[in-house]
Amino acid sequence: MRYVSYEHEGRIRPGYLDGDRVGSIDCSTLLEYIALSPAERERKRLREFVPLSRVTLAAPVRPNKNVFCVGRNYLDHALEVSQQTGRELKLPDVPTFFTKAPTAIAAPGQTLEFSSKVSNEYDWEAELAIVIGSRVKDVSEANALAAVFGYTCFNDLTARDLQRAHGQWFKGKSLDSAAPMGPWIVSRDEIGDAQDLTVALRVNGIEKQRSTTARMIFSLPVLIASLSKGMTLEPGDVIATGTPEGVGFARTPPEFLRDGDDVEVEIEKIGVLRNRIRIV
Amino acid sequence: MRYVSYEHEGRIRPGYLDGDRVGSIDCSTLLEYIALSPAERERKRLREFVPLSRVTLAAPVRPNKNVFCVGRNYLDHALEVSQQTGRELKLPDVPTFFTKAPTAIAAPGQTLEFSSKVSNEYDWEAELAIVIGSRVKDVSEANALAAVFGYTCFNDLTARDLQRAHGQWFKGKSLDSAAPMGPWIVSRDEIGDAQDLTVALRVNGIEKQRSTTARMIFSLPVLIASLSKGMTLEPGDVIATGTPEGVGFARTPPEFLRDGDDVEVEIEKIGVLRNRIRIV
Repeated sequence: MRYVSYEHEGRIRPGYLDGDRVGSIDCSTLLEYIALSPAERERKRLREFVPLSRVTLAAPVRPNKNVFCVGRNYLDHALEVSQQTGRELKLPDVPTFFTKAPTAIAAPGQTLEFSSKVSNEYDWEAELAIVIGSRVKDVSEANALAAVFGYTCFNDLTARDLQRAHGQWFKGKSLDSAAPMGPWIVSRDEIGDAQDLTVALRVNGIEKQRSTTARMIFSLPVLIASLSKGMTLEPGDVIATGTPEGVGFARTPPEFLRDGDDVEVEIEKIGVLRNRIRIV
Repeated sequence: MRYVSYEHEGRIRPGYLDGDRVGSIDCSTLLEYIALSPAERERKRLREFVPLSRVTLAAPVRPNKNVFCVGRNYLDHALEVSQQTGRELKLPDVPTFFTKAPTAIAAPGQTLEFSSKVSNEYDWEAELAIVIGSRVKDVSEANALAAVFGYTCFNDLTARDLQRAHGQWFKGKSLDSAAPMGPWIVSRDEIGDAQDLTVALRVNGIEKQRSTTARMIFSLPVLIASLSKGMTLEPGDVIATGTPEGVGFARTPPEFLRDGDDVEVEIEKIGVLRNRIRIV
């Protein structure tokens, strides 16, 4: 099953895809729907449809907290960062977690507006994002995937100069519209093995990143188990699982996003998240 | 004016203090009330009271995002960390922002339960917290304080071993109940100059921290202006403004919280935030 949020008559509604139609969900938000049991969810899916071509998609969810993110979770990305910064490559024993403010969340297809007064180094990061489906704490690696509702595409847009200047990464990761997500959430059962999906990113059609989630340093179950240690995860929580090699600042010479650029994150079995960059 | 959230008939309600009574607020949460205009807020304050002694206080707000926090914002704290870790003291030009998950928020008076399987280094950090009152982005330092709704006491409890191991600070800062807050929010007009308040912390009655907000490296307007650069702040957002010297891990020998400890954060013109520590 594929889930969307979409604009309809001036407000954002949750829905599910049925071929080229969007079926209604009798909840006020997709976040509310995700928090239900599977049986309750089934009752909320109505047989009322609008054509997908007639709606504007919104970001599938805005959780009631920051988006969880993982740093340096692909070896080749950790290597390129080490080479670019001149810092010794020292992989941690546990994942590096940081967050992005939910005000950064943006819709598929949305033009993302940034200011050249705030940063001159807007960079891309294609990532598979997990959407959590149940309330869990101290979940084991064996049970971790059972807590997943589904997966979506995520672009962890980053202002590199701010990421460096502020010491911790949060500020350079949390500018408004720096967290586009979508176009939909694909349910866990429809994805199957999420640890073997191609992840790619293109800028103006030119491929910049291509890898597979099979190359993660910390697997999806390890990320969920580690994050939930002593900390409750809630339905609708989003975990962006790290980016592979090919980001802009680690290129020779470094490349950053420019006004008018089109950025596409494509993940196998999910689809393409497209955004235009506007820098004013 | 002093604002509280309190348990009443099985749910959490917002209220305001009137002497030793709690007045009702006709909103479902204090977060909803804070988002109103001053005139609308006045209409929502009802003349219906219950004795303060008869209610159980909750955390005044749970924002729809992580709590913003500031690292190394008092020189003497930055110095003690540098001495303890053996790392050169290098103060950044801009504030160090990180976040704590809202699932960490805990009530005044609440017993805070932690697990010895998750961390063996639970530490304290007394902080003044700002509660934002209006939606602002790119606010100037001159206009920053006008965006403040009020202030409260905050304990930025930290699992030092996790803070170190995970690279970024988020995970070691976000364990469930590691963000007690309260006992109430004191409005900006009642506080007056928040840049000259005594901040103290006691463990089992023994003073561990004592400083004043006058000693911040980055002042309250600088913090708000810097955080809002390119990033929208929303009503009810909480910014914990950093801790002064005297934290546990920087002591000789290091001290950490133990099962049964009583921790008090006291801030001038606000009051005392008390919590019992339970480590199982």
